[in-house]
Amino acid sequence: MTDYFELVKAAQRRLAGHAHVTPIMTSKTLNRMTGAEVYFKCENLQRMGAFKFRGAYNAMSQLSDAQRKEGVITYSSGNHAQAVALVGRILGIRTTVVMPDNAPAVKRTATEEYGARVVEYNPAETTREEVSKDLLGRHNYTLIPPYDHVNIVAGQGTAALEMFEDLKSLDMLLVPCGGGGLLSGSAVAAKGLHPACRVIGVEPELADDATKSFRTGTLHTVHNPPTIADGTRTPSLGKLTFRLVREYVDDMQTVSEAAIMEAVKFLFYRMKIVVEPSGALGLAALLNGSISHKGRIGIILSGGNMDGVTMKQILNDERNGVYNYRRS
Amino acid sequence: MTDYFELVKAAQRRLAGHAHVTPIMTSKTLNRMTGAEVYFKCENLQRMGAFKFRGAYNAMSQLSDAQRKEGVITYSSGNHAQAVALVGRILGIRTTVVMPDNAPAVKRTATEEYGARVVEYNPAETTREEVSKDLLGRHNYTLIPPYDHVNIVAGQGTAALEMFEDLKSLDMLLVPCGGGGLLSGSAVAAKGLHPACRVIGVEPELADDATKSFRTGTLHTVHNPPTIADGTRTPSLGKLTFRLVREYVDDMQTVSEAAIMEAVKFLFYRMKIVVEPSGALGLAALLNGSISHKGRIGIILSGGNMDGVTMKQILNDERNGVYNYRRS
Repeated sequence: MTDYFELVKAAQRRLAGHAHVTPIMTSKTLNRMTGAEVYFKCENLQRMGAFKFRGAYNAMSQLSDAQRKEGVITYSSGNHAQAVALVGRILGIRTTVVMPDNAPAVKRTATEEYGARVVEYNPAETTREEVSKDLLGRHNYTLIPPYDHVNIVAGQGTAALEMFEDLKSLDMLLVPCGGGGLLSGSAVAAKGLHPACRVIGVEPELADDATKSFRTGTLHTVHNPPTIADGTRTPSLGKLTFRLVREYVDDMQTVSEAAIMEAVKFLFYRMKIVVEPSGALGLAALLNGSISHKGRIGIILSGGNMDGVTMKQILNDERNGVYNYRRS
Repeated sequence: MTDYFELVKAAQRRLAGHAHVTPIMTSKTLNRMTGAEVYFKCENLQRMGAFKFRGAYNAMSQLSDAQRKEGVITYSSGNHAQAVALVGRILGIRTTVVMPDNAPAVKRTATEEYGARVVEYNPAETTREEVSKDLLGRHNYTLIPPYDHVNIVAGQGTAALEMFEDLKSLDMLLVPCGGGGLLSGSAVAAKGLHPACRVIGVEPELADDATKSFRTGTLHTVHNPPTIADGTRTPSLGKLTFRLVREYVDDMQTVSEAAIMEAVKFLFYRMKIVVEPSGALGLAALLNGSISHKGRIGIILSGGNMDGVTMKQILNDERNGVYNYRRS
């Protein structure tokens, strides 16, 4: 039987000196507002701006020389694409990224700037899996999937592992959930070190497939959910991540679009950090009152890659009142 | 003769446990772009979001019991007002802040939330100095000026002092300049520890009074300059800060509005931190090519208090091209 916790610890050794050990931040204002003691793990300050670097590096650094020579492929228009491209540059591995032709130009440019070859497809005509399969048939690429792989999950778990090493204990850990790579890795790390820590996955109400899957035991899917949290628009948990989430995660919470935007604004105005909507899900669950726990709460801020259009949309949203913008 | 460096060291002891020792951040992308080794002192992550907490705490914690009982007064619509209000709350000192009646509501609200009494005046009819003088005549308040006081200057110098303690040496230090409190304090600290470090003050081209004063030896003033860097809209250096800037600072640089906005965007998109326009002046001087030095450069990011309107204005500005938004 696979010892997933050992794999997370091995990933941490592999990442040492390559990934940043990201800082942990606190907010006196938030602690006063909530009565809890909140610790933020700032993966928005990770290399390429998101935790995805951890999984990509853990997976790609384990490839054989022969595999490295042939290159890798992935499908993603988000942070995983940039992570694979950057790790490829660092390790000298050619990278190919399959992306829909309607992906924002800025994301394509960023991926290409890290040195990846981008292959576009028309999502009305085919799927990214089909295009990848076709390319895999014609090349000896290794596929680096965005979440449903043990080496990806183990790499993503290192962020929570660092948190527990720094903070010693936590009563609760709030983790964003898209495909479940970060959530299952974090839960494995938490339960490995502090089984009493409650691990809670958070996803948008508009993309609540993982919550339904968690509650029912049957894998639910959503199709292109219209949430602002673009990192959670994945259709469903993966085969592996579904199993790990069911086994290691204590509960799931959903949050409204308004709560997500409120959380991004709090981080902007009060904490002076840039966190993308998907990255702010944990704080959204705390701010909207879903979590009433008063003890030591860890929150993983999973990424900070946000375009100006999204930031402006959020700053324009005043459903939750205008924040004033001071720290205390 | 006053030993200003000793006063900065004494301020540091006074601030211990009250002000944050703010983190120092780096950017591989920026180092690659500039060929230099750049270190950012993140005073945007200081309490109330700016270095101003340091000077206010240093000044107000030295008041006698009798002075504390009578309360303090200041005039400012910016970060100094919030700093005095917050320190007042911490030390149990009543605070009165004189503010123009056209100050943004959000600034007034923030000051009041920290517990200050705000006294408004009509800037078309009178000046903040007149209103303060009138209030001082009727109450036994102590005036806590925004920059032109030795205890304020000494407090502001502690940010640079921390930088040198962390980094051991720097070849150059870039510091925003408004009224000159942060700049003169930083220069005193730098020259006290590493006399060879070149200290350069940076201000907007549109508010270049300190640069002119520095070059000519005669105090120049500007009237309400239309720069986006609202923290530098002060009319001139103070009596003390002018003398200290002339004595301790090596050079002054000015930067365009476009360069300031470019710097704010770089910090937002690449470094995932929120820095207000005045706080980004040092980086603006580096990005616009004014500074060609390739060694170890320290930059003080002086504050992060920015309203949504200003952020949106900056995100809308594409004169310098669209940044893509990844870290490497």
